[in-house]
Formats: sequence, C-alpha cells, structure tokens
Amino acid sequence: MKELIAGVLDGRARAIARLITWIENSELAAETAVAALYPHTGQAHIIGITGPPGSGKSTLVNEIAKLLRQQGQRVGIIAVDPSSPFTGGALLGDRVRMRDLAGDSGVFMRSMASRGSLGGLAQATWAAIKVLDAAGFARVVVETVGAGQAEVDIARAAHTTVVVEAPGMGDDVQAFKAGILEIADILVVNKADRPGSERVVRSLELMLHLGPMGGTRHHGRILETPSPAANGSTGGWQIPVLPTAASEGQGIAELVNQIEQHLTYLQTSGEWQRREQERCRHELHQLLQARLMAQLTTAVSETEKDALVTAVAAREIDPYTAVRQLLTHFPGNLVVSGK
Amino acid sequence: MKELIAGVLDGRARAIARLITWIENSELAAETAVAALYPHTGQAHIIGITGPPGSGKSTLVNEIAKLLRQQGQRVGIIAVDPSSPFTGGALLGDRVRMRDLAGDSGVFMRSMASRGSLGGLAQATWAAIKVLDAAGFARVVVETVGAGQAEVDIARAAHTTVVVEAPGMGDDVQAFKAGILEIADILVVNKADRPGSERVVRSLELMLHLGPMGGTRHHGRILETPSPAANGSTGGWQIPVLPTAASEGQGIAELVNQIEQHLTYLQTSGEWQRREQERCRHELHQLLQARLMAQLTTAVSETEKDALVTAVAAREIDPYTAVRQLLTHFPGNLVVSGK
Repeated sequence: MKELIAGVLDGRARAIARLITWIENSELAAETAVAALYPHTGQAHIIGITGPPGSGKSTLVNEIAKLLRQQGQRVGIIAVDPSSPFTGGALLGDRVRMRDLAGDSGVFMRSMASRGSLGGLAQATWAAIKVLDAAGFARVVVETVGAGQAEVDIARAAHTTVVVEAPGMGDDVQAFKAGILEIADILVVNKADRPGSERVVRSLELMLHLGPMGGTRHHGRILETPSPAANGSTGGWQIPVLPTAASEGQGIAELVNQIEQHLTYLQTSGEWQRREQERCRHELHQLLQARLMAQLTTAVSETEKDALVTAVAAREIDPYTAVRQLLTHFPGNLVVSGK
Repeated sequence: MKELIAGVLDGRARAIARLITWIENSELAAETAVAALYPHTGQAHIIGITGPPGSGKSTLVNEIAKLLRQQGQRVGIIAVDPSSPFTGGALLGDRVRMRDLAGDSGVFMRSMASRGSLGGLAQATWAAIKVLDAAGFARVVVETVGAGQAEVDIARAAHTTVVVEAPGMGDDVQAFKAGILEIADILVVNKADRPGSERVVRSLELMLHLGPMGGTRHHGRILETPSPAANGSTGGWQIPVLPTAASEGQGIAELVNQIEQHLTYLQTSGEWQRREQERCRHELHQLLQARLMAQLTTAVSETEKDALVTAVAAREIDPYTAVRQLLTHFPGNLVVSGK
C-alpha cells in the first residue's frame, strides 16, 4: 500500500489504477488510502457531467478532455455507471471512445460500476476522486448516466456541474428537466446539429427564467441555501445554455471556456469554500450512515431478522412495528431502549 | 386519521388521495396508516414499469390501465418521479395522459416526487402502494423514470417488473441494458413502429441468451439467488421480449396477457412467497437505516459536526477519521467506543 501511495503521488498511471481497484474492493483499503492521500487533495477542479441516456455525454467528455489536454491540463476522468448494479458493467465503460486519448500520460480514465448499492458506489467514487486529486490531475471529470439521485450525488461531489440534454428524447425529458435545473451550473444541449435542438435550448432558457429562483439566482445551482457572504457578492453566476455537437467537435471550446469561468467565479466569490464545506458535510453523513448500518448488522442476529421478515410477509406484524422491535435489540439505541 | 383509514378501506378516492398526501409529508402518519392498513394488504399484484426517459412509459402505463379496466380489474397507478428531488415535479406527473381514465372510480392515479432523498421517496412509495393495496386495487402499477438505483428499488417493490426500451435512444442505452436485464421479468420494446425497433428486440433477445445465467435462467430476474424449492420447479419463467406501439395501442393485449401469466407463474411456483419475503426484508433494512440516522442526528451536536466538517474541508483531518470521532460520541456505538 505504501508503495502504491508513493506511486499515486508521483502520478503514475499503474499505481493509480491499482489503488482504485483496491478501493473498489475493500472499504479498509479506501480508508487507509484516503487517510494517506488526503493532505495532498483539494487542488483539483472537480467537474460533474450528467444527463439522460442517449444525450451523448461520453463523446462530450472525450472532447472536453482533449481540449483541456491541449491547454496543458492533466485530466482525470471517472465514468460512473450505476446502471449495472450487479455485474461488470464498467467493462462497457472503458470504451473505444477514449481511443483519441490513449497513450497520453496526462489523461487517466476509469469506469466505476455500482456494487449492489448506490451508497457503496458513491463512496468508492469519492475515494477515487481523491486519488486523482492527490495524483496531481488539475481537472477531474466525473460522468454519470442516470436520472435522479445519482445526479444529486454528483452535484454534491463536483465543484461545477454540467447537465447535458439532447433533442428528441421524448416527453419524459421535460419532467427530467425540472429537477435537473436545480443542480446545473452549466446546461448543454448536445447533438445541436439535430432537428429540434433550438427548441430544447429555448425551453431550457425559459425554465431557467421561470425557475424557483427566477432571475435572482446568484449561485448557479440552488441545491444549497446561499451563504450571507455570497449573497453580498456582486453579480453571481448566470447559468449558460450552450449548444454543442460533440461528435463534430462543435461548441466544445465555449463549453470549456464556461467551465473555466465557473471555476474563476467559484474562487473569487467564496463559493469554492462553501461548496467544499457542503461536499465534506455530505460525505461525512454518508460515511456515518454506512458505518451505523454495519454496526446494526453485527448487533442483530440473522435468525431474529429472518423471523421478523417472515412475520411481516405473513402480515402478522407491520414493518414499522418490526423495525421498533429490531431497534430494541440494538444496545446503543437512544430513542427506543430509553436506558 | 381513523376516518381516512375507513375511507381507504372503502376504496374512496378522496380518502386515498388525502392519506397519501399525509404520508408524503409525515413519517409518523406513514407509520400510523401502515400499521392500521397492513392486515388488509397482500392482495394486490404490484407491477413495476421502468425504463429510460423517452421510452414512452407513461403512454404504455395508460394503455395497460385501460385494458385492465376493460377486463374488470381495479387499477392503482403510482408514477414515481425521482428526477425532481427538490421541487414539485409531481405536478408534471398528473398529466394530460390520464385523460382517458378520468372519472373512472376503478382507477386511481398518483404521482410522487422525491423529497430530497431517494430513501424518503422509496418509503413514501412503499406506504402508498400499501394504501392502494388495502383500498382493494387488485393491480397496482408503479412507474419510474430513471437509470440505476431507482429500478433496483422498483424491482424490490414489485412482484412483476416490466422494463421498457425504445429504438433510437443512443449508445448509452447499451450500457443501461446490462444492468436492466437483471431486474426484468418482461422486456418491452416500445415505439415498435419506429425504425430500428427490430434490432433492439434482437439485441435484447441476444443479451438474454448470453446473460450471466444464459439459457438456464428459471426465475425471471436474477436479482436474488433462487430458492431450492423454486429450483425444483419445472419450467420456470422465460423472459419475453415484446414489441409495442403504445401510442397506437399495439401490442398491449399481449403485454397484459404476459403480465397475467407472470402472476400465475409466481403463484404456482412458490416465487410469490419468496418475493414477498425479499420485499419485506428490503423494506425493513431501509426503514432501519432511516431510524438509525435519525438517532445519530439527535446524538451529535450541530456545533461539533460543523467543527469537524470545517476541519475536513481544510484538510486538517480526513473524512474517515472524522467519522470515527463522531461515532465515539454516539453512546450506543458498538465497535468504536468498546464500552
């Protein structure tokens, strides 16, 4: 492990890859690695890219990475694939698309798939981000497929969240947008060379204008309440809606420009510190939850759990009563045991 | 509350709607309602319908409900919309699409949006399913948009899971499929009147054939390990791949027929009981987790939490060390405090 850590701090790709694999497979490894690397983190600009399946995120990430490389940035990419919670979906992730970047030691690309729980995937992803951060990648791009909680978790892991839409995705996308606007710092309408893209751009601009915070939005995403300090700042961040055609390389320069401008905004407005606080708070909360559940698993016997499950399935007792019963056997229970 | 419960057991739509709203807004209400209604549940066939945005699920659910009504079944519909975790995305859910069913007291339709956490939404959805079950709806259809954890949670809440695809959704859908196959009892290729649908059907059939369990799959979804009893049963369930064009009403009869056949399969093979056990186990686990976190929130002061978050953000301590420190203050902590 010590050797791997040294290799990571040297930015060596093989050490990074091996450490991330280790982290994926062992929580203890994640803990040891993060403890060792943590003082070296906090430098990377973490960029989340999210949107529905079929919006062309992978190609977009590829193009962003190419341009950042041309600008001399070292780029780490983590493609999170929660769509395959049980098998090796990540194999599909390290795909042909990264061909253009192969052999460039300034780029590191890794796919991560869920191992049975969204929580486990999120924790492994956070640890992997720290590995890339400590390894000196100035930009870490985190890509996810999905609609829902995964995006929110990304918004919490990223400094800058880019939400990707595309024309022709059907009516569900309309509903999708309502939630998505709340985590976006930058909106992208990809496949802008297709019919209907103008309409998507306009409807997004309209939704931004009509959104819960209307024209008064100052911080980009409205996930967190603005801090008083940030409220006092002049201007704030206007969420741009950018058309791109990633497969043609169109619009990428402006997108990367806006990503960099958002970084500048974060650094000059105090938002960077505020988001770091939020990121840490969320991560602590998630880690705590995982630990408590592990402790409960130890405290309650499988036999007792099985008996309760059977009773609930037979409608002999209701689930809430069963949970209260389980909690009385958890020695540290504060509310129920009352001791 | 007592009056509402009586109204629900009578199958009155207004009582059902009001109770679900109450459940959404108060965990205590959910607990009270479920305790009262639980003995009256266990009759409904819970049908999950899931798939990526743009696959036309809403129209499909509408058509399924219409046909089930024609067959004399009372149908409850819950449209879960995790894409809007913070605002009233559900407003978009009770959409025009249900026009055909309006005024029919044999149908109840309700949208539910996430309230900040996937766990909270899942719990409210489970409670709402129980309300509809107790209200005498023989079929409860639960529809979700999304790719990832949401589908897995649906598979765990439903007796029969229908996964919907559509042609022309882009390459991400390929990755999407790998995970989705593992929760499907029935696969639907909607928009089958569009070009490319034949190819989607064939690729799904190929993936089914090549999947982790290949031709030996006996239980439909492979989410859980088969029980010995079920293994001994003859035949098992062959996952069908069904083309539909919901907006034209095509293929709906065969889909509803397959859903009913799957119900028969569940009831005659012992799978129904096994899935009930799994459903209850999963729900207990989730409820326990929520309770433990609530207790932790009580046990640790906000001031201390804030100080730790600040220290983590400043890279003074790493998150895992911070969590260990928080856990020592949790009086019931089993592993760390060691008292």
